Amino acid sequence: MTLPRTVRLQDKFDAFSDHFSPKVIGELNGQHVKAVKFSGEFIWHSHEHEDELFLVTRGTLLMRFRDGEQRVGVGEFIIVPRGVEHLPVALDDEVWVLLFEPATTVNTGTAGGERTVTDLERL
Amino acid sequence: MTLPRTVRLQDKFDAFSDHFSPKVIGELNGQHVKAVKFSGEFIWHSHEHEDELFLVTRGTLLMRFRDGEQRVGVGEFIIVPRGVEHLPVALDDEVWVLLFEPATTVNTGTAGGERTVTDLERL
Repeated sequence: MTLPRTVRLQDKFDAFSDHFSPKVIGELNGQHVKAVKFSGEFIWHSHEHEDELFLVTRGTLLMRFRDGEQRVGVGEFIIVPRGVEHLPVALDDEVWVLLFEPATTVNTGTAGGERTVTDLERL
Repeated sequence: MTLPRTVRLQDKFDAFSDHFSPKVIGELNGQHVKAVKFSGEFIWHSHEHEDELFLVTRGTLLMRFRDGEQRVGVGEFIIVPRGVEHLPVALDDEVWVLLFEPATTVNTGTAGGERTVTDLERL
């Protein structure tokens, strides 16, 4: 078999520069591990069938909900359950986030629109 | 609904001191996020149905396989596919690891034995 290999997060984040476009950097149990860079504000959306984990590795993310908000800094994560509307906002010029979510997850959820990424790049 | 809350990894790791005893710190899509502290060498084992992700947040982990090994340092992860025998070894006095794996995962896999943790603590 192929020996499992260590993945260095910094290498993966160094390999792309676009924002709000998650890259698949790992796959297990039908779930994806993704690296994404946030800048500014994304869009309000929710996912019908997927819970989403956001683990911040650079900068601070503000996760807005319809009835509150949470700051997520380096070394912190937040889990957004399916069905919960959320709006990720980068509080720094660039915020780096590791996502852990089902392989079926679309970045804009049920909101759709021009910021939807359909062809996920693998790094 | 209850507002999702930010989880600080450091707080979770500060909340326990035993080794090789994973604590559940998050749950999503039938998967667990666990915090575990490794010291010394664990045991050879594999999981029949579960792939496992190890993300290191302190120290360096050596993941031994029957036909090779990989070092995993801070900010790095490795995914061990189901069925692959592995032996985690802490290369520092204490190594802190975040695990992503199905909620069904038992720490010793099919090997069993005295180091099996059956009652997972939630932090």
